[in-house]
Amino acid sequence: MRWSRYFLHTTREVPSDAEVVSHRLMVRAGMIRKLAAGIYTYLPFGWRSLRKLMTIVRRELDAAGAVELNMPAIQPAALWEESGRWEKYGKELLRLTDRHERPFCFGPTHEEVVTEAVRGAVKSYRQLPVNLFQIQVKFRDEIRPRFGLMRGREFLMKDGYSFDVDDEGLTVTYDAMGRAYERIFEECQLRFLRVEADSGTIGGTSSHEFMVLAETGESEIASCAACGYGANVERAAAGALEPPPAGPEGERRVVETPGRTTVDEVAAFLGVAPAQIVKTLVYETENGPVVALGRGDREIHPVKLGNAVGAAQVQLAGETTVREITGSPVGYAGPVGLAEGVAVVADETVRPLTGFVTGANRADAHLVGVNWTDEDLPAVTWADLLTVTAGDPCPRCGEELAITRGIEVGHIFRLGDAYSEPMGCVYTDENGDTRPMIMGCYGLGIGRTIAAAIEQNHDEKGIIWPRPLAPFEVLVMPLTSRDPEVVREAERIYEELRAKGADVLLDDRDERPGVKFNDADLIGVPVRVVIGSRSLAEGKVELSHRRDGEKRPTSTARAVERALEMLLDEDAPAG
Amino acid sequence: MRWSRYFLHTTREVPSDAEVVSHRLMVRAGMIRKLAAGIYTYLPFGWRSLRKLMTIVRRELDAAGAVELNMPAIQPAALWEESGRWEKYGKELLRLTDRHERPFCFGPTHEEVVTEAVRGAVKSYRQLPVNLFQIQVKFRDEIRPRFGLMRGREFLMKDGYSFDVDDEGLTVTYDAMGRAYERIFEECQLRFLRVEADSGTIGGTSSHEFMVLAETGESEIASCAACGYGANVERAAAGALEPPPAGPEGERRVVETPGRTTVDEVAAFLGVAPAQIVKTLVYETENGPVVALGRGDREIHPVKLGNAVGAAQVQLAGETTVREITGSPVGYAGPVGLAEGVAVVADETVRPLTGFVTGANRADAHLVGVNWTDEDLPAVTWADLLTVTAGDPCPRCGEELAITRGIEVGHIFRLGDAYSEPMGCVYTDENGDTRPMIMGCYGLGIGRTIAAAIEQNHDEKGIIWPRPLAPFEVLVMPLTSRDPEVVREAERIYEELRAKGADVLLDDRDERPGVKFNDADLIGVPVRVVIGSRSLAEGKVELSHRRDGEKRPTSTARAVERALEMLLDEDAPAG
Repeated sequence: MRWSRYFLHTTREVPSDAEVVSHRLMVRAGMIRKLAAGIYTYLPFGWRSLRKLMTIVRRELDAAGAVELNMPAIQPAALWEESGRWEKYGKELLRLTDRHERPFCFGPTHEEVVTEAVRGAVKSYRQLPVNLFQIQVKFRDEIRPRFGLMRGREFLMKDGYSFDVDDEGLTVTYDAMGRAYERIFEECQLRFLRVEADSGTIGGTSSHEFMVLAETGESEIASCAACGYGANVERAAAGALEPPPAGPEGERRVVETPGRTTVDEVAAFLGVAPAQIVKTLVYETENGPVVALGRGDREIHPVKLGNAVGAAQVQLAGETTVREITGSPVGYAGPVGLAEGVAVVADETVRPLTGFVTGANRADAHLVGVNWTDEDLPAVTWADLLTVTAGDPCPRCGEELAITRGIEVGHIFRLGDAYSEPMGCVYTDENGDTRPMIMGCYGLGIGRTIAAAIEQNHDEKGIIWPRPLAPFEVLVMPLTSRDPEVVREAERIYEELRAKGADVLLDDRDERPGVKFNDADLIGVPVRVVIGSRSLAEGKVELSHRRDGEKRPTSTARAVERALEMLLDEDAPAG
Repeated sequence: MRWSRYFLHTTREVPSDAEVVSHRLMVRAGMIRKLAAGIYTYLPFGWRSLRKLMTIVRRELDAAGAVELNMPAIQPAALWEESGRWEKYGKELLRLTDRHERPFCFGPTHEEVVTEAVRGAVKSYRQLPVNLFQIQVKFRDEIRPRFGLMRGREFLMKDGYSFDVDDEGLTVTYDAMGRAYERIFEECQLRFLRVEADSGTIGGTSSHEFMVLAETGESEIASCAACGYGANVERAAAGALEPPPAGPEGERRVVETPGRTTVDEVAAFLGVAPAQIVKTLVYETENGPVVALGRGDREIHPVKLGNAVGAAQVQLAGETTVREITGSPVGYAGPVGLAEGVAVVADETVRPLTGFVTGANRADAHLVGVNWTDEDLPAVTWADLLTVTAGDPCPRCGEELAITRGIEVGHIFRLGDAYSEPMGCVYTDENGDTRPMIMGCYGLGIGRTIAAAIEQNHDEKGIIWPRPLAPFEVLVMPLTSRDPEVVREAERIYEELRAKGADVLLDDRDERPGVKFNDADLIGVPVRVVIGSRSLAEGKVELSHRRDGEKRPTSTARAVERALEMLLDEDAPAG
C-alpha cells in the first residue's frame, strides 16, 4: 500500500477524554475516529489490525470445530421476555421500537437468538453437540463509555455458543474452546493469563477470563508461578493464612479508645497486632445493608461479598446507614448489638481467632477478648471474602501468589441450562426423555484485544505492534521524494517485498524526514527500511526493528532478504 | 466439513410469506432463519456463501484502489441534521434514543458519517482523491419487508464513498468503480447488465445499476444487443418512434362517443389508429395533481413523470380528482378546458401529431382534429414520459431494444456536492481557494446478490450454485453408513480433495439415499461424488455436475483428479 493513496492521517492532538494510552495512541495513529460517546469509526489503519485478528480467530475456532454464522443486531423483545432478561437487563440494553411500535433491542449478546435457532433445528441427541460462533456488532449503553475501544458502546465481539447433551459434554466443548482461546492469544504474540473468574450477572456455574497482561490493566490477577493457578482477584482464593497469636483468655471487656477509629490506631493503642482485630464493615446492596467481618490487616473484596449474599451491587455504606445498623459513629462498629435482622457475613480468615478485638458499637470504645462462642454474637455466615495479596499462599500448592494487572479480552462461561430451561431448548435423549441442552458461551472482544495489545506493547513514541496484529509488517521509507535514486530504490524494495508476500506500507508522502520518523514510531510497523541519499550513495539502506530501534546498515542487494529475515525474528520470543 | 458436525438442517416447510423462489430455497436449504419481519439470521450454510462473495468484493475493490474501513451502525441525529436528511428521510429511518434521551438512528447508509470523517482529515487537493468502502450492517424500516433477503430490514451492504477535486476526477473514480463492479459480478459467474438508472431520492447527477438477469426480477431493463446500451425502464429512452399518419385537416369538432372510454374503443369507433389519439391521464403527487399527455398506443412511466415535475410519489388519480381537474367522468379527459393552474406534461412522442383525437372533458364525447397550435390548449411541458417496450429503436444506434427482467444488486451514483456542500466537506485547491469535494457513492447488496444468484440459478429441485458463490464446491456422498468399504472410500476421497484445496462437504449423516439425493439437489453443491456399495464393488464411484445431473461413472483411482477437473469445467461458460 502506498501511503499517498491510503487514508492514514496521524495527529498530535489527543482528545481530552483519552485517559488510557491505547485510546490516545489509536486516535493519534489514525486508527479510530469518535462519532459519538463510545461510538467509533474504525479507520482503515485500525480496521486492518482488527481484520488480522478476526482472521486468526476464525482460523482457530474453525480448527476447534466451531461453525460460523451471523445473527441480527436487532432482536425482538418477545424473545428476551422468554429468557427473562427483558425485565432484568437494565439501562445498558438499548431498547427501541420500529415504525409499527413493536419493541426491539440492539443486542448486547445473542443467547436468546441462538437458543431460538437451535431449538428450532435440533431435536435429538444425535444432532448434538452444536458449537456456533459469530463476529458481530453489539451495543451496550454504558452510562459512562470511556477508554476508547476498551469500554465502548458499539463494539465488535466474537461470541460463541455451545449446546451439549450434558455437563460432561459441555466440559469437552468448554475445554476445547479454552484451548482455542489460548492458541488465539499465543498467535497474536500477547502475554496473557487464563484465570478463574467471577461469573457476574450472566449466570451459569463457572467461568474463565483471558487477561492480556499490562500495567495499565483494570483487573487484578492472582497467579502462581509454581503450579499455574490463576484467578481474577474478584474470585481468587488463598491457602490458609498463618493465624495471628491467640488473644488473652478470660472475661470480655469494654475498653475506652478515645479517637482511635482505624485498625492501626486501635492496635497500637491496645498493643495487639492488627490481625488480632476483627473489623466490621457495613455495605449497601440492592437488597439492603449487610455487615461484613474481616481480619484487621486485610481487605474484604466487595465482589466476593456480593456473591455471598446474592447481590450485584455492593458498596460501603454511608455514615447514616452505619449509625442505623450499629448505633454508633463510623470507626467503632462491631458484631455485638447490631440492628435486628441485618445479615452478617464473616471472612473465613477470622474463624480461627480467639480473644480478639472488635468495635463496641458506641463512640470511643472497643471490645477486647471477644470469642465466637460469645452468646451475644449474631448468627454469622462464613464465606471467603478475602482480597488476595502478593505473597499469600496459593490455594492449590501453597507457594506464594503474585499479583499482576491485566485487561480482560475473553470470557468463557459454563451456562448450564440457564437459557435452555426457560426457553424450552430441549432434545430427546437415547431413552426418549426430553432434556434441556447444556450450554456454554464464549466471548472475545475484537476491538478490546487490539487496544489491549497496544496497552501491552508501546513506548513513549508510539505503538510497537506484535507482528500478527500489525496493520502492515514492513514500512519502506524513502527520506526524500526529490532524489530519483532514492525513489527508485524505495519502489524496487517495496515491489519486491510485496511480490514475496510481505504486507508493506510505502511512505511515499512528500514530507520531511523528521515527520516520517515520528510517524513511523507512532504507527509502530514492526520492521522498517529507510532509504536516504547519503547511505544509498554507499550502496546501503538502513533496516531496524521498531521494538529496539537498532540500526542495521544493509547493502541494497541484501535489503529485501534481510527485511524478510527480520520479520521472522519478530516471531521469535522477544528478548 | 462433515455434515454431522455442521449446522445444516434442510426443511420441506416453506414459510407462508415466501413469495419468491430465492426466499423459499434459502429457507429450505437451511441458509437463513427469520427472527422477525425482514430480520434474518444467516445460518452457517448461508453465511458461507455471503463470506465468499465478500472475499471477491474485497479483492476487486482493493485492486481498484478503494480502501476498507468500518463505520458504526448507530449514528447521531445531529449529523443527519447537517445534511438535511433527518427531516427528509421518512419512516424507513429507524430512529432511537439512548439512555440519556439523545437522538440517534440505525444507519441506512453512511454518507453523513464518511463525509464527517473525510472533512476532519483532508484539507488539501494533494490529499485527494479518497476512496473508502465498508461491508457493514444497515437497517431500513420497510413498511412491508418481503422476499427474504431481497427486501429485508436489517441487511449487509458494501457501501463505498469517493471524494475528488472535481467532476473530471469523479469520472475517473466512478468509471474505475463501475469496472470493479463488472469484475465482481463476472467473477461470481452471474449474467448481469450495467444499466443507466434513475437516481431516485439519493440525489446527484447520474447513476447506474447492476442488474442480475432473472425472469423473476422486479425491474424491467431495456437493452440493445447491437451497441450495448442498457437502462432501467424507469429511465430508458427510445430513439424517435415512427409517427402515425397525420389526422384530417380542417376544423376541430366534437364527436359523440357514447360509452367509449378506452383508447381502443374510441379508435375503433372513430376509425383512427390508437397512435392518433393523445390520451390524457391525471396523477396525484405529493405536490398536488398533474396531467400527463401520451400517445394512445403507449404507456406513460410514472417515474419519468415524477422526474419531470420533481415528485417522488406519483400514482394515477382517483375518480374524484379526475372530476375536479377535467369536469368529466373518467374516460373522457382531454387537454382542452382543464382546471386552472394544473401542470400539464406531454410526452415527446405526441409532439409530431397533427389533427389528433383527445377526450372532450365531458361524458360520451371526444374532440377530433386537435392540433398543438390550437389556442385553447394549455401551456405544456415537453418531456420523455415513454415506457420503452421491446422493439423500440435504441436511442444510441437505432437497432431494436429488448426488454428483460433483472434484480438490482448494485447501484452507483455521482453525488457531486449534494453532501459535501451542506456539510462543509471542503478542500483548498492549487490557488488557495476553498471548494467542496465532489463525491460518488457505490452500493452493493451482499445478501441480495446471493438471493439474485439463486433466482438466476435454480431448478424445481433446488439451488444450482455458481461455483464461486457455492458454500461448498464438492459434495462427497456415501450412500450408506453401514458398508465399511463405502465409508472408507468416502473418507479417502473427502480427505484427498481437502488436501488439494477443494472446499468439500462430506454427507456423513446416517440417512437413506433418497434423503441424501433430495438434500443434495436442494443445497446445490456444484460437483457431486456418490459412493455406493454396488458400483464400489466394481471399483467405481459416480460423479456429476449439479447443473446437468449427468452421471459419470469413474474409477476410484481417478475420482479425485476427475472431481477437480469438473470444478474447473464449472468455470467454463455454461452450455
